[in-house]
Amino acid sequence: MAPNARASLNTRRRFLAPFAGQAVNPPPIWLMRQAGRYLPEYRATRDEAGSFLALCYRPELAAEVTLQPIRRYGFDAAILFADILIVPDALGQEVRFETGEGPRLDPITDEMALSRLEPSGTEAKFGLICETVQRLRQDLPEETALIGFCGAPWTVATYMVGGRGSPDQADARAWAYRDPDGFQKLIDILVEVSIDYLSGQVKAGADALQIFDSWAGSLPDNEFARWVIDPTRHMVDALKARHPGVPIIGFPRGAGASTAEFVTATGVEGVSCDTSMPLCAMRELAELDIVVQGNLDPLLLVAGGDALDRRIDETLAAMKGRRHIFNLGHGIVPQTPPENVARLVERIRSVA
Amino acid sequence: MAPNARASLNTRRRFLAPFAGQAVNPPPIWLMRQAGRYLPEYRATRDEAGSFLALCYRPELAAEVTLQPIRRYGFDAAILFADILIVPDALGQEVRFETGEGPRLDPITDEMALSRLEPSGTEAKFGLICETVQRLRQDLPEETALIGFCGAPWTVATYMVGGRGSPDQADARAWAYRDPDGFQKLIDILVEVSIDYLSGQVKAGADALQIFDSWAGSLPDNEFARWVIDPTRHMVDALKARHPGVPIIGFPRGAGASTAEFVTATGVEGVSCDTSMPLCAMRELAELDIVVQGNLDPLLLVAGGDALDRRIDETLAAMKGRRHIFNLGHGIVPQTPPENVARLVERIRSVA
Repeated sequence: MAPNARASLNTRRRFLAPFAGQAVNPPPIWLMRQAGRYLPEYRATRDEAGSFLALCYRPELAAEVTLQPIRRYGFDAAILFADILIVPDALGQEVRFETGEGPRLDPITDEMALSRLEPSGTEAKFGLICETVQRLRQDLPEETALIGFCGAPWTVATYMVGGRGSPDQADARAWAYRDPDGFQKLIDILVEVSIDYLSGQVKAGADALQIFDSWAGSLPDNEFARWVIDPTRHMVDALKARHPGVPIIGFPRGAGASTAEFVTATGVEGVSCDTSMPLCAMRELAELDIVVQGNLDPLLLVAGGDALDRRIDETLAAMKGRRHIFNLGHGIVPQTPPENVARLVERIRSVA
Repeated sequence: MAPNARASLNTRRRFLAPFAGQAVNPPPIWLMRQAGRYLPEYRATRDEAGSFLALCYRPELAAEVTLQPIRRYGFDAAILFADILIVPDALGQEVRFETGEGPRLDPITDEMALSRLEPSGTEAKFGLICETVQRLRQDLPEETALIGFCGAPWTVATYMVGGRGSPDQADARAWAYRDPDGFQKLIDILVEVSIDYLSGQVKAGADALQIFDSWAGSLPDNEFARWVIDPTRHMVDALKARHPGVPIIGFPRGAGASTAEFVTATGVEGVSCDTSMPLCAMRELAELDIVVQGNLDPLLLVAGGDALDRRIDETLAAMKGRRHIFNLGHGIVPQTPPENVARLVERIRSVA
């Protein structure tokens, strides 16, 4: 389809080839949260940084942890080490990570409180993240693509409104019902700064982008259209206009039966599927002329053994000939044995 | 289809008519967790019982809280007041509810620990639940159907293995990967006792059954087939053999794109859809010659107002002419204003 579809697979085009219309066998592979606590070298660097957010904001250390899994496993893509809550933090809604707890923010629960946010003041913190991207572009092997990312406005909003993670995102959903116009203003702010943030990552050297909508699955269809699809489409439109040819992957986790609608309505070039998406449905999504990413169960990567091998083989067989990128259905969990990740990569690359 | 499709809608056949092949307009309505903390009269009865489980095991009080929402709102069906963890509790794995916390059990994490369970000792506790059903059958208005229920083996197992609720059901999923044959033994025990439990409820007077699989959505397709579909099909087969004509509703929450497969493979006569199922997908499910239940967002019932009215109307319009039972996508939340429930029922019954 695109002119680079036949580009050499020895460059980072291997990861990019599916976006140019080319199925690659074996498929390119990277894993969500591939830089993380399951790796001893990550834990050492994080200790050096002192805190999780400090690690995100120190480009030399953030680049180092991004590179660690590439050195170990030779993934086809690296993903910038950062967090989806960089955006609220940069907007002035300070994010704290306490030991053993998830993130904590002083909640913003109505339109009045939006005045606490400073959309014009994000430059310093976004600049540190983009410096990490620049370093990575220099330090990564030539064959490794670099993925930039941010959280989707809806998912980021659930943390900003709730002040923490929650199983049902009730606070954000309640505001959206109570005062949709006010909530829209928060979403609009997030759309705008996220476009600038991702655009900065591309200018700094990112080859592709992923938008993480971890809590897309809690919404009924009409709310999904307004808070998941519309903001994502606005971001995709603006980023395509600024950076034509840089593919964007959506990850509407839990979207289930709404995933095809998400793909066609947002214009993403790729969709990442969570673990619950059946392989037959992933095959159908691939018919939409997009790249499909996923969707091994992270807990199977903990378990390892024959069950892991069998599921890898099933996934490869199901997606063979499709524009598939191998990934997990969600992030690697900390208790994952690093040798199981090596086994996964070896298996994928040995099965043709 | 069935001979009673034309039965009078003034009896409890109004709820049962869709299962006999008849679309009813306006649709029958009941709400998951319609007996619960949002009602002051429920809180008073619960305080009298002393604890949540004590309330489940006192037939006169459990029947009373089951009847409370019927008196207020005249729902077309009552659902037995009990809990999905009655089954492990009756099996000898004691369940504790601490104030402000969810349930707590001493976890069963391997096959050895299954010896702690006593499948032959469930009679006393199941008997108390069935006594509630008998009382309800006597005390309910003639036009109100009575739904019995239990948790699905997979979902109940996640609590038995994890010892509590968890966002990712990691402990049960890990056991299922580590030792599928051992985990199968736990599932088999749950299938057998759940069949007896539900059969007892039918003998005591239940008109229909619902199987709640709240955590069906965390599994990849092959595990979903083994731990969600297979056990449910075994239960449906056995219950249909013992009690032909008693409809069974499955609620595989989060099953998303696997829901149609769940319906056709298990043989359930109805499926309850969670909030994330788009209305167009609910219409498609109705084409499978089943009853479709759902799926209003419980948080919209908290918000109320015009947004609630609009969504009720959209749902009714989308499902008109289908075999639809109006319900929520998940249980009523405690902060729901009782007057919003009245508004919902009135709206549904006034829109033709």
